[in-house]
This record gives sequence, C-alpha cells and structure tokens, in this order.
Amino acid sequence: MSKVAIIGVGSTTYGDHTATPLRNLAAMAISQAIRDAGISDQRIAAAYAGSGLAGVLGGQEGMVGQLALRELGITGIPIMRIENACASSACAVREASLAIRAGEVDVALAFGVEKMKGYPTDQVLRALAGDGDVPLEGDAGLIFPAVFAMMARVHMQRFSTPREALAAVAEKAHANAMLNPTAQMRETITRERALQGRIVADPLTVYDCCPVSDGAAAVVLANENVANALPGRKVWLDSCVLVSGSYENSDLVSFEATRRAATKAYETAGVGPKDIDFAEVHDCFTIAEIIHSEDLGFFEKGDGGFAVLRGETTRGGTKPINVSGGLKAKGHPIGATGAGQIVEVALQLRGQAGARQLEGVKIGLTHCMGGFFGADCGSLVVSILSK
Amino acid sequence: MSKVAIIGVGSTTYGDHTATPLRNLAAMAISQAIRDAGISDQRIAAAYAGSGLAGVLGGQEGMVGQLALRELGITGIPIMRIENACASSACAVREASLAIRAGEVDVALAFGVEKMKGYPTDQVLRALAGDGDVPLEGDAGLIFPAVFAMMARVHMQRFSTPREALAAVAEKAHANAMLNPTAQMRETITRERALQGRIVADPLTVYDCCPVSDGAAAVVLANENVANALPGRKVWLDSCVLVSGSYENSDLVSFEATRRAATKAYETAGVGPKDIDFAEVHDCFTIAEIIHSEDLGFFEKGDGGFAVLRGETTRGGTKPINVSGGLKAKGHPIGATGAGQIVEVALQLRGQAGARQLEGVKIGLTHCMGGFFGADCGSLVVSILSK
Repeated sequence: MSKVAIIGVGSTTYGDHTATPLRNLAAMAISQAIRDAGISDQRIAAAYAGSGLAGVLGGQEGMVGQLALRELGITGIPIMRIENACASSACAVREASLAIRAGEVDVALAFGVEKMKGYPTDQVLRALAGDGDVPLEGDAGLIFPAVFAMMARVHMQRFSTPREALAAVAEKAHANAMLNPTAQMRETITRERALQGRIVADPLTVYDCCPVSDGAAAVVLANENVANALPGRKVWLDSCVLVSGSYENSDLVSFEATRRAATKAYETAGVGPKDIDFAEVHDCFTIAEIIHSEDLGFFEKGDGGFAVLRGETTRGGTKPINVSGGLKAKGHPIGATGAGQIVEVALQLRGQAGARQLEGVKIGLTHCMGGFFGADCGSLVVSILSK
Repeated sequence: MSKVAIIGVGSTTYGDHTATPLRNLAAMAISQAIRDAGISDQRIAAAYAGSGLAGVLGGQEGMVGQLALRELGITGIPIMRIENACASSACAVREASLAIRAGEVDVALAFGVEKMKGYPTDQVLRALAGDGDVPLEGDAGLIFPAVFAMMARVHMQRFSTPREALAAVAEKAHANAMLNPTAQMRETITRERALQGRIVADPLTVYDCCPVSDGAAAVVLANENVANALPGRKVWLDSCVLVSGSYENSDLVSFEATRRAATKAYETAGVGPKDIDFAEVHDCFTIAEIIHSEDLGFFEKGDGGFAVLRGETTRGGTKPINVSGGLKAKGHPIGATGAGQIVEVALQLRGQAGARQLEGVKIGLTHCMGGFFGADCGSLVVSILSK
C-alpha cells in the first residue's frame, strides 16, 4: 500500500456555534488545516465533506463541501459529501486516502462539520434516529440511549462490571477535556456526581451520554512525495479500515465490527494492540468506550470496566483513551467527529497537543462508529497513525 | 490509469414506487446488477450508495446502503453513502472506481436510489432547493426551474435559438422513452403539445421539465483481471471525471464545469467529442440538454438548438442524445440518475438495449450534474465507456 500522510489538521472548538453558518464553521477548520499544512489553497486537488445532518436539521442537504470551500475561494476541484452517520468524516478521510493511493490526486482534503444546537429536542432526536433502522427501531423507541443502556445492563450482569466504572469513564473524559481548549464540556464531573445524574435510560444518566454539539474538523492528506518535500509536521496514516456490521452478533456485550476492523487495521499497519500508545475511541456513551476498548484488543472481554477503575485508560495509565475528552466531553458534532479524532492523534504524535500532550507517543489509533441496527453498528472505521 | 470495467448493471423502472420501501427498491436494482455480472454476492467487496433525499423526504438519512444490502444478505463490507445532489450515484461510481484503482478492492458496487413520490409538493420543492445555496438562492425563490428559465431566455436571445427547439427536445425524449420499458413517461408528446403546456417558469412549460420520480439503478465494477476472467458482457470505464463549478462563469449560456470535465474525460480516454457515438446528457430541463450538448463539444456554442431541429440528436441522427428518454422522460430519481445513465450506456454498448438498441455503437458518454449556485453547477461528472 502506497503511503499516505496527514500533513495538516484544523478544528473549531466544539460546542455552541448557533450564530455561525455551517459553511463558515467548516471553512474555519479547513483554512486552519491548510495553513497548518503550509501549502497553498491551490494544492488541494479533491475534497470530501463529512456531514450527517445538514439536510434534516438545516435544510442544506447538498453542496455542503462546495459552499464551505467557496468561502475560501477553493472551487473547481472534485468535491462530494460523504455520509455514514457518526462515521461520516472518518469515511471522508478514507476516501481522500483512496484517491491519493489511486494516483488520482496528490493532495486531498477531508473534513467534517455539523450543527446540532438550537433545534427543538424532538427534531434532533428524530434526526439521530435516522441513523438507525427507522421503521424497525427508531419508530419503535429503540433509539441510541436505549440500545446502549441495554448493552450496559448486559455487560454489568455478565462480567460483574461495577456501575462505578461507567461513572469513572465520565470522570476521566471531563478531566481530560479540562486540558483541551477545543472541548465542549470543560467542567469537572466527579464519579459521585456522575452516579447521581438524571437518568436518561437506566442505568445511563445524563453524564453517561455525549452532548449535542456544533463543530468542524479538517485534515489535509498527501502522498509520500508531497509529504516528504514539506518541512516536518507530517504523520503517517498506516491504515484506515472501514467495515459494516455483520448483524450476526447479538450478545450485546461486544461489537463484532470493531473486532473485525481492528484486526485488519493492525494487520495493514503491521502492529498489534500492545503497540498502540493511545487511542481516540467512539465513546458516544460511557459503556461504549468500555466495550470498544475490549474489542480493540486493549483489554480482555469483560475486563474493560475494571481496567478503567484501575486507571489504565487515564492520561497516566498504560493505555490512555480519549485524552481529548472524547465524544463524551470534547463533544460529538456527528459529521465532524471522525476527522476530529484524526486531528487529536496527529497533534499528539507531533508533540503539539499543548497541556494535554502525552509523552513519547509514537503510534495512535482512532475508532469511529456510525449508526446502529440489527445488534451491531452500521459502519466502523479504525485508523492507525504513526510518526 | 489501471483499467476498470463495468461487469453488471441493473435498474428498476422509474416512476411511482410509493408502495415499496427505499431499501427494497434499491435491493431490486442491486440484485439485478449482481446477477447480470454473473458473480456471487460474496464477491462484492465494497459498496457506495448514492442518495440525495432519503433523509429530508423519508427520515432515513443514514444507513441507506447498509439497509439495502442487508435485504440481500450482504453485510460486513465497507459501505457508505455518497451525496452530491443529482450527481450522487455518478460520484458513487467514481468512488467505486477509485477503490479499485487504489487496489483496495477488486469488485465494488455503486448504486443510487431515490423515492420522491407521495410527498407534498412544497416538501419536495424544499428538498430540491436544499441542493442549491439555501439562504442565498432557494429562500429567495431562485429554485431550479427559475434558473433554467433564465438560461433559456438568454440562450434564445443571444443565439436566436427558436423556442421550438426546446419543444423538439421534449418530443425526442418522449419518443425515445416509448422504446424503454424502464422509462416513466411513456407517452408521445408532440412538439405542438409541448409548446402549449402549462407554464412553469416562462418560457419553460411543464413539458420542458423532468418529472418527480422514484427509482434505483446499480452498477458492479471490477478490476481488469476479474473482468477478463468473466465471460463477455463487460464494458470499460475509460474515464470518470468529477469537477465542481468555478463560479466564474456568469454568461448563463454555458456550463464551464461541463467543458472542463469533458476536456479532462476526453484526454483521459484518449478520444474527442467526434468519437462519441451516443450520450446520456443531464436534461433536467430541455434547455439543459441543448446547452450541455454544446459544452460537451458535440455542437458549436449557439448551435445546440438548431442541431436538435436538424434531427442530429435523435436515434437516427449523427449524435444520438438520451436514447433512454433522459431525465426528461425516462425520469429523474435524483440519487439514481447517474448510475442509471451508466446502465443505459453499458446496455447499448453490449447490444442489449432491446427496442431502443443503437447500431454499431462503440463509445458512449454519460454526463451528470448536481446542484446549482453562483451561476454554475455544484458538481459535474463526465464518464466515457467503451466496448
């Protein structure tokens, strides 16, 4: 596989951007990423825009990428929107890397953007339910918090996972977000407080759920020749694997898609779970981080909750997870999340993560999941990046 | 550029499928394409689903591809949705070809699906306006019929294009659709009747506008090795070029994006406009076919309308255009249109187009446009296929 590099990254803060039009929010992240790459706007030869809800929430279904790039005077190039629920911009990064590997372009942009704040709650819930199987699941009340609450219950029962482990994930996420200027939830949440939160779907409280967010993130990718000609700052995208769920798995304590994507990503990158220094994992709910951390091979099945309680996933632990704050506390602007995870890992590998910089990290992993139905996720992307 | 083949095609009829769920409609076209390819379902290694309006009209924004493929028992593979307004599945074909050229997969599926019937008219119009610049254009009333009416007026004034030329495009489209069992508008419309239609946006009458359609179309692509190992029926995708508008063009009588995409497509395929035996051109409105046929290099700028009146674009003419009936009479299920054009050209090149078969055709072109704002289109795909 020909090598693909991440040569520039950019991100807005995640949070409330109701006053900023979608196109401008995206343009902020894109211009930052291009500036970071140290290249001219004119070098961007193709662009992939990840967005999940721009149409159902904002009425602007089409032209999301074209409108954002026009703000920066970037026109004429191939631009399309990639939609894959919460994995939309993770898939945009994949398509950008394939365009480079195919030799179609030497430099490509992938970005994600979402605006979810300022809409009535029922409209946001309906939009999110549109990422499941609407007639069979969403319309029957099986929306995401309900699904993950069931998974939490089964995990707790089967492996004696303490309820406190979920709260510990929340506590860690918030502690990490305190160090991240782009994070949405910069507030200390103790384990005790998390346990006493308002119930959303028993046993999940409001502190077990990621917030509703606005935000944008962007990544500039290049082939090896272009990357090597630039002074410093690049990281390598050693693998970027997308799979769909197989829907054969219905034990509710694991994501078969995560295991399958991770296996292929490790194989492609020539590493194993032990080699991963840190990871950004799709923690849309606290229980999700625990389950995925097992399926990624970081911990034995059933040990994920205990690993959190042992402190292994904290900044100072053996396997730091979501040092950015994760979806849970950094925020989860659907379409932007996957690209945002790549931004975080790239900054960490470059040693430019500021107050939240991890020491000596060389290999990082991102894990992004989209949609859910039939007892598995709809789409799952695992990427491995290295210095 | 490594060679990519179209090894299987399938299409539903276009028209009214209100009784069929979106996923089943898509599955019908997909299963037909896989059967046509003569391969096992398990050979499909990646899938790209083109859909523009599934979320804003049907509430099912995400998982369009996963849900359709699960109907056929195809799970686990990389699946994502490609959205680029009316060029969504033309772009899905492009991404499938890039995945093959990158060596990521050897066989890939690209399909498109849309359900637009059975919704209140204002909802459909609002959904379609979501493919323009909503705050600057749609909200100000500059929706697609208005834009193309302006282009028709300017073209008629500048080049003395007779109003009758537009009616002749409609007459031809309907005559061609009469020979196509998948076409939606199988009714003879004479030039005289077209001229006397109800005005939609002066000078365009209802007979100058494509209908609202449901439909799905699918294409199986493969690399050269796989294609050559299959018995017959393949055609080659010699180029598949996507560009965006440059928005520098504001003369309203040409699409700079069409000219640019066509130039690159001809160059890549090593042919010129004279070598193209027939073409499927994005005739969302009659005037669109005339203008694009000039920008594709088939006729001199300003001669497009006269060429139609001379009969050059009919089945028996020098440059048959939209022998399928085109968007105008075959129908225009937004997300399916681009893949559907590829289906038509592949069938013609294979000599399997039934009553509408053209004789001796060797090279065909598809032209698909998505969105419109800032005096040019948002996305434009030109593909060239050969035997």
